[in-house]
Amino acid sequence: MKLEFPILVINFKAYPQSSGKNALRLAKVAEKVSKELGASIAVAPQITDLYLVASSVEIPVFSQHCDPYPPGAYTGWITLEAIKDAGAIGTIINHSEHRLRLDVIDEIIKRAKDLNMITLVCTNTPEVSAAAAAMNPDIIAIEPPELIGTGIPVSKAKPEIVTSTVDLVRRINREVKILTGAGITSGEDVEAALKLGTEGVLVASGIVKAKDWEKAIIELAKPLVR
Amino acid sequence: MKLEFPILVINFKAYPQSSGKNALRLAKVAEKVSKELGASIAVAPQITDLYLVASSVEIPVFSQHCDPYPPGAYTGWITLEAIKDAGAIGTIINHSEHRLRLDVIDEIIKRAKDLNMITLVCTNTPEVSAAAAAMNPDIIAIEPPELIGTGIPVSKAKPEIVTSTVDLVRRINREVKILTGAGITSGEDVEAALKLGTEGVLVASGIVKAKDWEKAIIELAKPLVR
Amino acid sequence: MKLEFPILVINFKAYPQSSGKNALRLAKVAEKVSKELGASIAVAPQITDLYLVASSVEIPVFSQHCDPYPPGAYTGWITLEAIKDAGAIGTIINHSEHRLRLDVIDEIIKRAKDLNMITLVCTNTPEVSAAAAAMNPDIIAIEPPELIGTGIPVSKAKPEIVTSTVDLVRRINREVKILTGAGITSGEDVEAALKLGTEGVLVASGIVKAKDWEKAIIELAKPLVR
Amino acid sequence: MKLEFPILVINFKAYPQSSGKNALRLAKVAEKVSKELGASIAVAPQITDLYLVASSVEIPVFSQHCDPYPPGAYTGWITLEAIKDAGAIGTIINHSEHRLRLDVIDEIIKRAKDLNMITLVCTNTPEVSAAAAAMNPDIIAIEPPELIGTGIPVSKAKPEIVTSTVDLVRRINREVKILTGAGITSGEDVEAALKLGTEGVLVASGIVKAKDWEKAIIELAKPLVR
Repeated sequence: MKLEFPILVINFKAYPQSSGKNALRLAKVAEKVSKELGASIAVAPQITDLYLVASSVEIPVFSQHCDPYPPGAYTGWITLEAIKDAGAIGTIINHSEHRLRLDVIDEIIKRAKDLNMITLVCTNTPEVSAAAAAMNPDIIAIEPPELIGTGIPVSKAKPEIVTSTVDLVRRINREVKILTGAGITSGEDVEAALKLGTEGVLVASGIVKAKDWEKAIIELAKPLVR
Repeated sequence: MKLEFPILVINFKAYPQSSGKNALRLAKVAEKVSKELGASIAVAPQITDLYLVASSVEIPVFSQHCDPYPPGAYTGWITLEAIKDAGAIGTIINHSEHRLRLDVIDEIIKRAKDLNMITLVCTNTPEVSAAAAAMNPDIIAIEPPELIGTGIPVSKAKPEIVTSTVDLVRRINREVKILTGAGITSGEDVEAALKLGTEGVLVASGIVKAKDWEKAIIELAKPLVR
Repeated sequence: MKLEFPILVINFKAYPQSSGKNALRLAKVAEKVSKELGASIAVAPQITDLYLVASSVEIPVFSQHCDPYPPGAYTGWITLEAIKDAGAIGTIINHSEHRLRLDVIDEIIKRAKDLNMITLVCTNTPEVSAAAAAMNPDIIAIEPPELIGTGIPVSKAKPEIVTSTVDLVRRINREVKILTGAGITSGEDVEAALKLGTEGVLVASGIVKAKDWEKAIIELAKPLVR
Repeated sequence: MKLEFPILVINFKAYPQSSGKNALRLAKVAEKVSKELGASIAVAPQITDLYLVASSVEIPVFSQHCDPYPPGAYTGWITLEAIKDAGAIGTIINHSEHRLRLDVIDEIIKRAKDLNMITLVCTNTPEVSAAAAAMNPDIIAIEPPELIGTGIPVSKAKPEIVTSTVDLVRRINREVKILTGAGITSGEDVEAALKLGTEGVLVASGIVKAKDWEKAIIELAKPLVR
C-alpha cells in the first residue's frame, strides 16, 4: 500500500473513545471520509486493536509504537513482524508519550526498511527532527510536546519550530516527508501546516475527542484535497 | 472465567513459530488437549495476537505484559483495559525478558484487581518472589533467568530456589498461587514442580519449539490431572 | 560506622542550595547539630559531592542512588564499590524521583550486604513497603510521592499510610527500620512520625530550602533525643 | 580549558584498576605523558572520582555520563552543573554501555552549550553518527559496540564504518570533531584512525588494563604529535 501526501494521520492513543469497538467505528468513519473526499487518511489504533482495524478497513493502518527486537524470546515486546502480520503498513515511533533511545530508532528504521514497512518518527525540536532525518525514516512529525492536546496549533503558537524543522531537515534529507503535529483542531490549522512546508498533519485528541467524528475529520481532511 | 490449578501456562513469546496464524493454531491445540485431558491450560500469545486468539478459543488467555497506565493519552502503551477488551483474563508481568519497576508492579496489580483481572508476576529469586507476594498478585512464577530456554529444569538444577520460594512466599501470603518456570520440557519436570509445592508450570520454548505441539502439551499437561 | 535510631536523614537532592561547596557547608551544620544534641543525623549529598563531604564530616554519609552493576565495563554507572570508596556507608535507592526495577532492588540489597553497606529503600505504598521489606534492606522510608516537597506531612495528611506500612512490614520483617518521609518541616511532624511507630524521618526541602539550616535541623532533630 | 586535537580520551569505566586512588594515579600518569610528549590527552574517571581527579591534574577531565535534569528535586541524578562544579569540562554521553533517548541527547547538548561545557556523544553506526552530528555536539566518537574491549580496532575490522561516518557527518556538520573508538590498543591503530579522517581516539581497556600504563599511553599518544 502506497501512502499519498498530503496526509492526515489519526493517532487513537489509548483513549477510551477510540479503543476496542470504538477503534473500529472511528477507523470506519475515517475510511468513509477518505473515500468521499479523495483525501489521504491513515489511522493508528492501539496495538491490541491493530488486527481488528486493519482487517476491516482499506485505508493505511499504523501501529503507535514498536520495539527493536526481532522475533524470538522477547516476552511482551512488540516486533515489526507482529504488527505487519496484524495488518499495519508501518509504525509511529518516538511519540512524545513514548520516547526511544537514539540507537533504537536507528535499529527500528533499518529493520522496517528490510520488512518494507513505513516509519513515522515523532520529534520535538528542529535539531531532533534533523537527527531523525539523518537516519532516513519515511516520515517525521514535528510535535512540540507542550502543545499536544492543548488545541493550540504549533503553526500559530510557534511557526518558527515548523519552519526551522523544514529548513534543517531539507539540508540533510530531501526524501523524508514532514508532518506537523500538536494542537491541530481546525482546517485553518491544516492549511497553515501545509503553507509552512509540511505535507500533512498528525492529530489525536482534535479528532478522537470531537463530538462528531465525521465532521471533525472532514474539517481536517478538506484542506488536503486541492 | 475461573482459573483452575494445577495449571500449565504457555508463553508464546515473540517466536515466529507462535505468531499470527501460528498463534491461533497453537492455541487451538492447547484447547484441544485441555478438553481431552481435562487439564487446566492457559495461553499467552503476543499482544498483537490477543484478540484473534481470545475470540477463537475457550481456554484462558493471558497477555504477556501490560503497562501501568489507564486509558488516555498514552500513545503505544498497553493498558489493562485494552487487553481485557481484546479478551484476555489477565496478564503476565515482570517476565525476565521484560522486568518492571517495583512501584509499577504494585500499580498494575491494584488496577488489575479493580478490573477483575488476573496478574501473574514472574520472579527470579526467593526474595523477589516474597516481595511480589507482598503485593498480592494472583500468581507468581519463579523462573531463574539463567535456566530459561535451556531445557534444564529449575526443579533439577536448583530445587532449593523453588522450595525457598514456596517457604518465603507462604509466610507472607497463603492465597497466591506459585508456578515453576524455566527449562521445563518433560512430564517428569512438571511432576517435580508439583512435588516441590508449586501449583503448575510456565513454559515457552519447551512447547513452542517442539516438533509436535500436541505431544509436547500432552506430556506436560498429564501430570496436572490426578 | 553504626547507625543509631531514631535518625534524621537529610536528602540533599540536586538542589543548588546543597550542591558543591554548599553540600559541604550543609553537612557541617548537620554534623554540628548532631554532636551538640547527641542526635543521630545522616546526610545524602549528590554523588559528585560524596567524596568531598564524606572526607570532611564524621556523621554517616549516604549516596542518593546506586546502580546494580559490579566494577567493570559499566561506563557512567554508579557502583556500590565506588560510593563506598568515596566514603558512603550506604545508599538510598528507589527514591520516588528515581524508581528502580524490582529485581534490581533485590540485586543491590544483596550486593550491599556483601560489601557491608547499608540500604535505605524508598517506598510509596504499604504494599510496596512490604515488598521492599521482603528483600531485607536495612531501612525503608515510606514517602507518598504526592506529598513530597509540599510541606504537608504524611503523618497528618495520610497517617493510615504510615500505620498500614508499619503493620504490613512488621508481619514480614522485624529487623528492618522504618522511616517516615514526605512533607516534614516541623518537630511536631517528627514526633508524629515516631508515635506512628517509625524510627526517624527522611527530609529534603524542609531542611535544604530553610533560610536557617541550623535552626531547621535542630527543630527536626530535637524530638529524636529522648 | 580549550581542547586540542588530535586527542586521546581515556575512559576509566568502572574498572577497579581505575577507581578511587587508582583513578588518581592513572590520571597523573596521563598528565605526565601529556606534558612530556606535548600530546592532547583527556581523562574520564568515574563520577564519584571526578572531584578528586579534576582537582589534582591539569589535563581536561570529562564525566562518563550525565542526566538531562537541571538542579532541583532530582534525587540521585547527575546534573551538568554538578559535574562542572566537580571540575569536569564536559561529558561523554550515550556510551554503548549507557545509551540515551534521542530527545535527552538533544536536551543535554543544549544545556551543555548554555553552561559552556563540552559534549562527546558516542555512536554505533554511520547513521547514528549523522543523527548525533545534527544536534551539534562538540565531539562524536564512533564505536561499533561489538568491537569494544576486544582489542580488534574498528579501523582494521570495519574501516568502512569510520569512513562512512566521516562522510555522512561532514555533509551535515563541518565543525564537530570525530573520534574513533573500540578495540584500540596500538599506535598503529591510532595512526589508522587519523588516516581514516578522524581526529583522535577514545580508549578504555586498552589503557586501563595495560600492565604498564605509562608505556600504553605513550604508545597511543605518540601518533597524535606530528
